[in-house]
Amino acid sequence: MINWTTKTERWGIFELAAGGPETGNPFKEVSWTAVFRNSGRMFHAPGFYDGDGIFKVRFSPDLPGAWTFETSSSEAGLDGLAGSFDVTEASPGNHGPVRVANTFHFAYEDGTPHNSIGTTCYAWTHQGNELEEQTLDTLAEAPFNKMRMCVFPKHYDFNHNEPEMLPFAGSLETGIDFERLNPACFRHLEKRILELQKLGIEADIILFHPYDRWGFAEMSPETDDFYLKYVVARLSAYRNVWWSLANEYDLFPNKTIGDWERFARIIMDNDPVSHLRSVHNCGAFYDYSRPWVTHCSIQRTDVYKTSENVTEWRERWRKPIVIDECTYEGDINHGWGNIPGTEMVRRFWEGYVRGGYMGHGETYMNPEEVLWWSKGGKLTGSSPARIAFLKRIAEEGPGQGMTPIPNRYGVDWDVAVGGQEGQYHLYYFGFFQPSFRIFTVNPAWTFKVEVIDTWNMTVEEVPGTFSGTFRIDMPTRQYMAVRLRRV
Amino acid sequence: MINWTTKTERWGIFELAAGGPETGNPFKEVSWTAVFRNSGRMFHAPGFYDGDGIFKVRFSPDLPGAWTFETSSSEAGLDGLAGSFDVTEASPGNHGPVRVANTFHFAYEDGTPHNSIGTTCYAWTHQGNELEEQTLDTLAEAPFNKMRMCVFPKHYDFNHNEPEMLPFAGSLETGIDFERLNPACFRHLEKRILELQKLGIEADIILFHPYDRWGFAEMSPETDDFYLKYVVARLSAYRNVWWSLANEYDLFPNKTIGDWERFARIIMDNDPVSHLRSVHNCGAFYDYSRPWVTHCSIQRTDVYKTSENVTEWRERWRKPIVIDECTYEGDINHGWGNIPGTEMVRRFWEGYVRGGYMGHGETYMNPEEVLWWSKGGKLTGSSPARIAFLKRIAEEGPGQGMTPIPNRYGVDWDVAVGGQEGQYHLYYFGFFQPSFRIFTVNPAWTFKVEVIDTWNMTVEEVPGTFSGTFRIDMPTRQYMAVRLRRV
Repeated sequence: MINWTTKTERWGIFELAAGGPETGNPFKEVSWTAVFRNSGRMFHAPGFYDGDGIFKVRFSPDLPGAWTFETSSSEAGLDGLAGSFDVTEASPGNHGPVRVANTFHFAYEDGTPHNSIGTTCYAWTHQGNELEEQTLDTLAEAPFNKMRMCVFPKHYDFNHNEPEMLPFAGSLETGIDFERLNPACFRHLEKRILELQKLGIEADIILFHPYDRWGFAEMSPETDDFYLKYVVARLSAYRNVWWSLANEYDLFPNKTIGDWERFARIIMDNDPVSHLRSVHNCGAFYDYSRPWVTHCSIQRTDVYKTSENVTEWRERWRKPIVIDECTYEGDINHGWGNIPGTEMVRRFWEGYVRGGYMGHGETYMNPEEVLWWSKGGKLTGSSPARIAFLKRIAEEGPGQGMTPIPNRYGVDWDVAVGGQEGQYHLYYFGFFQPSFRIFTVNPAWTFKVEVIDTWNMTVEEVPGTFSGTFRIDMPTRQYMAVRLRRV
Repeated sequence: MINWTTKTERWGIFELAAGGPETGNPFKEVSWTAVFRNSGRMFHAPGFYDGDGIFKVRFSPDLPGAWTFETSSSEAGLDGLAGSFDVTEASPGNHGPVRVANTFHFAYEDGTPHNSIGTTCYAWTHQGNELEEQTLDTLAEAPFNKMRMCVFPKHYDFNHNEPEMLPFAGSLETGIDFERLNPACFRHLEKRILELQKLGIEADIILFHPYDRWGFAEMSPETDDFYLKYVVARLSAYRNVWWSLANEYDLFPNKTIGDWERFARIIMDNDPVSHLRSVHNCGAFYDYSRPWVTHCSIQRTDVYKTSENVTEWRERWRKPIVIDECTYEGDINHGWGNIPGTEMVRRFWEGYVRGGYMGHGETYMNPEEVLWWSKGGKLTGSSPARIAFLKRIAEEGPGQGMTPIPNRYGVDWDVAVGGQEGQYHLYYFGFFQPSFRIFTVNPAWTFKVEVIDTWNMTVEEVPGTFSGTFRIDMPTRQYMAVRLRRV
């Protein structure tokens, strides 16, 4: 058999399926790739074995029009297959994969800005349909547009349930077969990635993580590479995929920087879409200046000062700063998971006004030990509503993202100010509680002024217009912002 | 005339007064010092001109017993005056001057620990009797045992009232005479220092500061030295004096490090009591490793992370860390004066458990523009009551001060722990809100455990005793501490 998608849309998924050998180890013993051509351009996409004698190649075309494909394989029956397909314009809501834009920011490939607001459910696709569907229902009502999630299941506090499926064949009881993958587990993962895509959520796929009882964190380099090529071949055609090489790359006992660099090379060689790529730390940062790193994926390394460092990190790496872990809202015993909503929202704002992107997670204890940060389920914290409010404020802001506004008059040493200088200035006062503020801006500019309560989610316009040095009364409360918009 | 104190107590004040020339400029033209002898020991004390033809020498004897004095002067009538006086034991409550103890801490000279808890009323002695007495009444009810205060009046926001007296002769209107001091202004200052002493409050005397409209911040080096010798001669016999060379040494347009070093030398040469000495920064820290610096007097240099730096600063300078300015509780426009009481108290605790000493100040706006931080008056903030609670907790703690307890089991990366290892462990959780905590201590030790709410000022003992690794339930609130006391 052979069949393929004869018509798809720009940034949709083309899939070619063909029958091939079931004997031996088709995961390892059959090579299978395809070349895709359009308008004189050419892309290579690796294929993969999907079980039951079926081999597949997927590809996400980046332009509308007529495309052709042609396969190569070590197997005669899979070699030289060729055909063509039509690609239509993208349907509404399909903006393509997310790219770096304007050095520090993101935009979808069609140019639409992407204001990354992540959350984290590390092992949510390993929890069974009931909980996974609850997670999707929660996400449908939440402000998040990126999900940090692992391919492998998770072994850790509050995470001792055995998943229904593993990415490799076999099981803990019968022994895991590191020579064969488990296509059913990946089909399930893909279904969830597609459901996220329909919700407008990017899937930040964590390829390796250290919280493990199955042996996935300590596989041989050959098995790591075998697994990685398979994942990339399967997932790269999903436009909402980002590659996160690791959660906490520095906690693997047996992996070196050389391993991570090799993984990055494998991804780049096998991902014709060139999805975003990064790697996440526990202690020391990865060297984000490496050319393959598209953006910084940061876990805060200081217990106290987190997103306030965005300004410094932007200058250091000149790439988008995504703080995927600034500590989670919750009340567990660990200091990475017990800040209140007020502090989570404060960290979001401190990062946002500086031109960074923050990630959320929630770790409130409950008798079922279903904590959002790993299993998904329901959100009970106070930060998501305020993060939605911030998202609304951001949508009203400059499309190209927030740029730090310099302290030109020496008076703003104590406040983060971002926006687009001369047009839009957003001041965030964090834990300070001024009863008034003296602002100084270029006297050639005239602004409307609004006082924003980021916690109570109100925006109040101050009557009149303002220029030069002027005083604005404020309510002696924490978590206030002031927005200046040029008249 | 000549008269002197024939009997005083240990660390009390001996004063010798003698008539001398009134003509010319007695402040400058007459040299006058005395030598004090007891038990084979000898101290030099400089004298000063107190106006109206009266010259004085003061001295604070550090041992009980029989003492003698003998003067030297350029003036025949003041030269060679000699006599003796008796010094009794110190009366109750008189513990002598404060000294550095145990590298990072303080104790009075009699060995009584001094847990420094400062506050700040920069110009309180320039506000007139009514307000100054209100300040003293407030201090009598407050937890503070150190007052940061200037010799010179202050010119700044909310500080435009002209003082009744200036330290130099003359006035703004008639012109200030930088060749002559104003003894009446100093007598008033001394009265206030003595009143503080009676309240158990150390007077941290700021000798220079930059907030000035009179010219005191830009005097010539000769005038600086002239003034400084006079202040030291007058004040060093007050046992509760500390010398702070400057508030914000780095904001003086005309002073160099060489000037500050010369000032330190002048103080050391003229202060027979060897009071504590430091200097306070705005931006860059002074080089606290200088031998004359007895302790670090710090203004936080980071807007967000302040007293959490105590551990690092202790290791860097190996001297007591006093954060005199960690930001003030208040609601003014400036970021150095608008944190809420919760944040002030959090900074006190973060500093305290790490073995540092914190300073308070209050800057709530009011229609009279009488802000505690500069003028004194009344305290209206929420932090002083909680600082009093912390003081009580500290008094129940190890007398030698708090020592950071190492994170021996790797589990306490997220919490500051101080005390005396094996005897007394105090954990402070700051803005985190754990619902429980797993503690790990040496299994050879058994502890009683108390959960402390530092904001609501409660201490609850957990039933039982605990050892090794154990779980303690906590109330999912911020600003909690846990105290372990060895059984």
